[in-house]
Amino acid sequence: MTHFESEIQSLKDRLLAMASRAESAVTNSVKALVERDDDLARSVKENDDEIDLLEKEVDEQAIRLLAKAPLATQLRLIVSATKIARDLERVGDEATTISRRSIELSQEPQLKPYVDLPRMAQMALEMLRDALDAFVTKDTQKARSVIPRDKDVDALNKQLYRELASFMIEKPTTITRCLNLMAISKALERIADHAKNVAEDVVYLYEARDIRHSEASGK
Amino acid sequence: MTHFESEIQSLKDRLLAMASRAESAVTNSVKALVERDDDLARSVKENDDEIDLLEKEVDEQAIRLLAKAPLATQLRLIVSATKIARDLERVGDEATTISRRSIELSQEPQLKPYVDLPRMAQMALEMLRDALDAFVTKDTQKARSVIPRDKDVDALNKQLYRELASFMIEKPTTITRCLNLMAISKALERIADHAKNVAEDVVYLYEARDIRHSEASGK
Repeated sequence: MTHFESEIQSLKDRLLAMASRAESAVTNSVKALVERDDDLARSVKENDDEIDLLEKEVDEQAIRLLAKAPLATQLRLIVSATKIARDLERVGDEATTISRRSIELSQEPQLKPYVDLPRMAQMALEMLRDALDAFVTKDTQKARSVIPRDKDVDALNKQLYRELASFMIEKPTTITRCLNLMAISKALERIADHAKNVAEDVVYLYEARDIRHSEASGK
Repeated sequence: MTHFESEIQSLKDRLLAMASRAESAVTNSVKALVERDDDLARSVKENDDEIDLLEKEVDEQAIRLLAKAPLATQLRLIVSATKIARDLERVGDEATTISRRSIELSQEPQLKPYVDLPRMAQMALEMLRDALDAFVTKDTQKARSVIPRDKDVDALNKQLYRELASFMIEKPTTITRCLNLMAISKALERIADHAKNVAEDVVYLYEARDIRHSEASGK
């Protein structure tokens, strides 16, 4: 077996190790739910850190393997392109979710003027625009600047979730509307998440190193 | 410019076309929300079909480019590995969400025996297991069989969402618990979605064709 072949084999093995941990995570999380076992639930979170680490290792190994192949830079672009495309496809899905919920919302009177949602949308869109701009201009510093901003959108989403949850308890007639607004807020939070992924792919593409789940990503 | 270089350039152009459509989708979906414009909301869904098509084209082009490179089969494995790894990482995240919500749920009396959620978990886990088994055994027929099952999990999630929404309107004291159960149901639906992605990657890996957004995927 050549070195290349054994590296490919170890890539496969690592992926299977991830798979087995991901399966256990799902099994245990549902077991924790059914058996109301908080300790088991907490162990899922710890296990998740291992899964994150394995993903990083898979990607690093993929980078090493590609670096040895002819046309390494172009290959990296191809890999990044398929990953970025998947994220953009998801952004489109989330926009479709927002639209579907908006149509439901327009069948009832508006709860209150929308302030937080357009602000979240603005932040998520700027992240997306900067990540794509960084892709075009090969500006990895700009790409890096996108990553920590995901936390701000997350925080806004959590805050809005809490506000809407309290609001529906106080006024149960608003439940349907609050659920729609929660779904929209969550969709915006996911769009920011995808923008962060694109930014990480841009750094990977031009610097050939993986910054996920590291200090730089603020995780 | 060589043919390879011009193909790479056209891959980039296609990605930027996707990016611009994804941005418009988000902008228009939020505009539709704020201005209560149902027609604009519906146009986002139509635009989304174009984004899906572009993603398919990006991936097909990536396959064509990789096919021309030396070590084409190994390269395809590397690309698939990084995509599968990302999906598995997300499965871990969803399991963590389920665990977090379970801990919140165990602070209040249980609403009713859980029947649908363990069933959804079972279905999602079987999809994941089959997709990974297909990866190991190179069984693309098995991988293909995973794809339509995503619709069943989607249907269960939608049904449970409606039941829980009605339930919280009838009994507002259950709102917090219903919201946690909705989040768990959604997480399971996403796990099935990731299993479907892995299955699609396995077909791509061994058959070198893209089946997403085609008739076979039931979309």
